Amino acid sequence: MADVLLEPGFAPAAPALSLRHTYRLVVAYDGTGFHGWQVQPDVPTVQRALIEAARGLFEADVRVVGASRTDAGVHALRQTVSLSTDAGRSAATVQAALNARLPREVRVIEAADAARGFDARRAARGKRYLYLIDNESVPSPLLLRWAWHVPGPLDLGAMRTALLAVAGRHDFTAFCAAPGRDADPVCRVRAVHLVARKSRLAILFSADRFLHRMVRNLVGSAVEIGRGARAPSWLAEILRERDRTRAGPTAPAHGLVLLRVLY
Amino acid sequence: MADVLLEPGFAPAAPALSLRHTYRLVVAYDGTGFHGWQVQPDVPTVQRALIEAARGLFEADVRVVGASRTDAGVHALRQTVSLSTDAGRSAATVQAALNARLPREVRVIEAADAARGFDARRAARGKRYLYLIDNESVPSPLLLRWAWHVPGPLDLGAMRTALLAVAGRHDFTAFCAAPGRDADPVCRVRAVHLVARKSRLAILFSADRFLHRMVRNLVGSAVEIGRGARAPSWLAEILRERDRTRAGPTAPAHGLVLLRVLY
Repeated sequence: MADVLLEPGFAPAAPALSLRHTYRLVVAYDGTGFHGWQVQPDVPTVQRALIEAARGLFEADVRVVGASRTDAGVHALRQTVSLSTDAGRSAATVQAALNARLPREVRVIEAADAARGFDARRAARGKRYLYLIDNESVPSPLLLRWAWHVPGPLDLGAMRTALLAVAGRHDFTAFCAAPGRDADPVCRVRAVHLVARKSRLAILFSADRFLHRMVRNLVGSAVEIGRGARAPSWLAEILRERDRTRAGPTAPAHGLVLLRVLY
Repeated sequence: MADVLLEPGFAPAAPALSLRHTYRLVVAYDGTGFHGWQVQPDVPTVQRALIEAARGLFEADVRVVGASRTDAGVHALRQTVSLSTDAGRSAATVQAALNARLPREVRVIEAADAARGFDARRAARGKRYLYLIDNESVPSPLLLRWAWHVPGPLDLGAMRTALLAVAGRHDFTAFCAAPGRDADPVCRVRAVHLVARKSRLAILFSADRFLHRMVRNLVGSAVEIGRGARAPSWLAEILRERDRTRAGPTAPAHGLVLLRVLY
């Protein structure tokens, strides 16, 4: 049981526990200084920061599950997290006490009691991500942490046409980081929007689920099309052929933000 | 002549020069890591970064004047800078070469040849500043560098009423950091706008000139009124009485951004 209750890298301090209390947290973070969400040995991650803060609070084992395992450098406005523990505190106390222990770059912005066994990842019915592109010739110092700097002209019409092809239910193997990590490569993309304001572009993706690096791979390919290196139909072709070796480069992590998780 | 041509803290490497070329630069910066605009001994400042980059490029003395002497932590989207030197290069070369030498947090986003003797500070006819407030109960990690976190309810109507009083031509002694730094305390405020979007507030100020810390002092007083600690009429009263000891606390520097300089 211990391997189910505890995250990798954290050995159980006690035999398997029946964790009685579950909280549903909404967490925001600046991902710049973290090696992503997931606990890894010897590096700061958002999940590790939350586990350590929660252990300091409850002085007991905790289980912390995030709906999205964001990569290193990816940000979150509203990551949903389930926190299970054997000790009981009010949700408001948990929120204040975690924030007092967490680094400033991670904040619990909401906390509520959840049904026992609530798992933020398994219960999620969808997610929304935003990818920001700074299309100025000189990168804005105020967007260094938040946007991919892509200089040179971009054909937004071509990018929009290309991105239309991903709406709906598709096998996204061509835009997956590595086959095997995601058992099921089929996702239903509910919306894709490219919004331009002066030379800042925002590409919004809403889907029932996402494969690993799917948004960054789609954005990288859309930018190839925007630059005119590929025809707008190219994105639909590689999607159809499911050949991940044909997709464009992966867009950098720091332009990506998890907007929210849908339940 | 040397004290006119060179900024404090930089001794002249050669006797007084007649600087033949002047460029007009538009510069953006993230002020977080700088001790403000103005050169000071032994600390990084934006002006120092520009002077050092320009000396590396021209291998000669340079004069660098910014329209606004922003305080430590204050940001700029479009600071205007005059750069004078004895050597000639194309403006495009100067822009690219400065950007190659500057830290990432400072970018020359435009460069053009200017009339000889153009002085970005003396020639300025107005400036626009924006002050950002994060009014969420928990501070957003994505706004840590850019917004003042003010939790608790704010009466935006009262703040707008109070700020109306500063529009027009007034003696702003009450909102000056220290008497004496600004010889003339009279400024004409052309516009003040408070824009709210969910729990983020932006207060925009446009004026022909600003006294030192004037925006931050006005925002600090407006927030006192928003919190209900003072009546909306209080801001007009202290403005009228010109007593700087009566104004509210100075809002922190990191919420302030210089939007642009008008000529």
